[in-house]
Amino acid sequence: MSEQSVDNVATESQPQSIGIVTPQSQHFDQPLVLASGRVLSEYDVVYETYGELNADKSNAILICHALSGHHHAAGFHQGDKKPGWWDHYIGPGKPIDSQRFFIVSMNNLGGCHGSTGPTSINPETGKAWQSDFPHMRCRDWVNSQRNLMKLLGIDQWAAVIGGSLGGMQAMRWALEYPDELRHCIVIASATKLTAQNIAFNEVARQAISSDPDFHDGFYIDHNVIPKRGLRLARMVGHITYLSEDGMGQKFGRELKAGSFMLGSDDDVEFQVESYLRYQGDMFSEVFDANTYILMTKALDYFDLAREYGDDAIAAFSHAKCSFFVVSFTSDWRFSTQRSREIVDALVAANKPVSYAEIEADFGHDAFLIPNKRYENVFHAYMQRVAEGCQ
Amino acid sequence: MSEQSVDNVATESQPQSIGIVTPQSQHFDQPLVLASGRVLSEYDVVYETYGELNADKSNAILICHALSGHHHAAGFHQGDKKPGWWDHYIGPGKPIDSQRFFIVSMNNLGGCHGSTGPTSINPETGKAWQSDFPHMRCRDWVNSQRNLMKLLGIDQWAAVIGGSLGGMQAMRWALEYPDELRHCIVIASATKLTAQNIAFNEVARQAISSDPDFHDGFYIDHNVIPKRGLRLARMVGHITYLSEDGMGQKFGRELKAGSFMLGSDDDVEFQVESYLRYQGDMFSEVFDANTYILMTKALDYFDLAREYGDDAIAAFSHAKCSFFVVSFTSDWRFSTQRSREIVDALVAANKPVSYAEIEADFGHDAFLIPNKRYENVFHAYMQRVAEGCQ
Repeated sequence: MSEQSVDNVATESQPQSIGIVTPQSQHFDQPLVLASGRVLSEYDVVYETYGELNADKSNAILICHALSGHHHAAGFHQGDKKPGWWDHYIGPGKPIDSQRFFIVSMNNLGGCHGSTGPTSINPETGKAWQSDFPHMRCRDWVNSQRNLMKLLGIDQWAAVIGGSLGGMQAMRWALEYPDELRHCIVIASATKLTAQNIAFNEVARQAISSDPDFHDGFYIDHNVIPKRGLRLARMVGHITYLSEDGMGQKFGRELKAGSFMLGSDDDVEFQVESYLRYQGDMFSEVFDANTYILMTKALDYFDLAREYGDDAIAAFSHAKCSFFVVSFTSDWRFSTQRSREIVDALVAANKPVSYAEIEADFGHDAFLIPNKRYENVFHAYMQRVAEGCQ
Repeated sequence: MSEQSVDNVATESQPQSIGIVTPQSQHFDQPLVLASGRVLSEYDVVYETYGELNADKSNAILICHALSGHHHAAGFHQGDKKPGWWDHYIGPGKPIDSQRFFIVSMNNLGGCHGSTGPTSINPETGKAWQSDFPHMRCRDWVNSQRNLMKLLGIDQWAAVIGGSLGGMQAMRWALEYPDELRHCIVIASATKLTAQNIAFNEVARQAISSDPDFHDGFYIDHNVIPKRGLRLARMVGHITYLSEDGMGQKFGRELKAGSFMLGSDDDVEFQVESYLRYQGDMFSEVFDANTYILMTKALDYFDLAREYGDDAIAAFSHAKCSFFVVSFTSDWRFSTQRSREIVDALVAANKPVSYAEIEADFGHDAFLIPNKRYENVFHAYMQRVAEGCQ
């Protein structure tokens, strides 16, 4: 769902990096019919690739990103000090091995990192789309990812991989285009959100939309951005993507100022407060508010089995690929229970599935963070994926 | 922490009610020296009493309220359809039996329900205090509660009882005035907040203080109220006081509109969203933003053992009363683990303590909600309290 906590833990030395990567952009002038019935008459997507496509094009991997993610999953952009959001798991010798696989990572439509989205120009009006940009569903992303896939000459993914909202896209791939992927890797995800999860997303949206600078989403027209709202939205997200224990370990009850003077709390703050404010400030500088709303709505409305009579077993019966499901013990927004529901439905649908429940701190963000067992099982499963590439 | 969810479940028929109650007000013109070093030169407190003080004044009970609570704990105000926030547990034949006990419930200083607080007039300026109102700590509330106690002619409470922030006051009573209470009843509380709890409070405060109508807390001077911020603060609170399962049971993923039309989500909403918006709107009409900030700060800074070398055992060694500690399995803001820490420290300090961990949905709000086992153990313990009243 976010790459926010990659810097939360001391990163192990990573001698093997993809190195410098350069995003590519692709224009599509074939209309894309969306789940909402609306049509994007033309659009651009920005993406990165790592590794080389093999001769029979059997080693292609699609990475699907989460709420605040983007195409820059691994390696470094020129001049950057921090690598892409999943660099620990993508690269030479890493679980998603760029020496074995051709890895494609695309910024989702509706995003704010280069693919067509609310900040892009609507060709019909010549002005930025802003909140007129169509709502997106996971299947829309799947379809646009598939258009890029065709353009790259790929007929079948070795694997589609995603965490959180990315895992929802991976599952949607397995149901929509069952012949076009061999493996589906679903990490810290769910077949649908819980009421609590929807509620947290709603608070985030309300924080943004009640910011006087939001202007019903047409803030670009007013030359402002709803920074206060976006900052609050991120603060809520940040707390909920971490675990209680993780926060306790990281911050405890430490005060920002050196000493605690009872009652003189005008200037002193707990470390956790200043950290949250800082994270919120940073995010509100770089992320688009309409994109945040769009992504959370896609999360809320995702319901894998809705059109299959609310029966996840019936839904998964359409899949033809193998599944690998991963969850993390301290993740309370996409709890292990949600992953077990996926696994149970897959087993009942008689589909091949491997499942790993990883002991981990740091809650939902655990899927982005170094963790030995997670690395090992991920490696092992990707070995199986590689063996299917001729 | 809140009385928000009293209406969450079908309330059982309650034939025995205290009936109509009338709040009382008391002016104090003796200065109150606060933990911050500041002084309230004079102040008013509003309170209610239920039942009769017995001849030797041994049957008095103090109820301490939580974040958004107030003095109106039980019975009905003239014309009200809903009773006080803890009516299920206070009244004739109820655990805190008004036929046996003389029950005192006071609005805390800094509140917004009648006791002196940010909306009151500062006698030195002739204007509302607003954010100039002094910060409050639990010990300040204990001291002002004690002044009322003396005025009522009570030398020793049979019990001091509180949930959440109220439980913190009850524990503070046990350490500050060990000879002046026989029982301390601590429900869904903690010796200090976790980093996650502080973080949620910080988001609430930031929501309020970043509302353009906040004006550094001097919104009364500007004839506005920071409604948007207070609404968001309440929404965050509301989610976190409920449990994930409780929300799931109450709302599931039901849509507000009758039918779901994929992609036409402009007008449809999940039930949980409209419920949260409604709750937030209601709260923002009636609660004072400066009080909300003041109460959350008191929560954050409470640390029972700080002045005892961070040793809860050393802290509790000063107590002379018996303790009854209650926690609820689905409460994740004041988890059972926090209550077990209290119990463990009390046992290590060789203090008499009874502990009940109650299986309950509805998270932190469970302490306000009908629950058979909770009622039974509460009844049983209060029987013991009553036996100590001559």
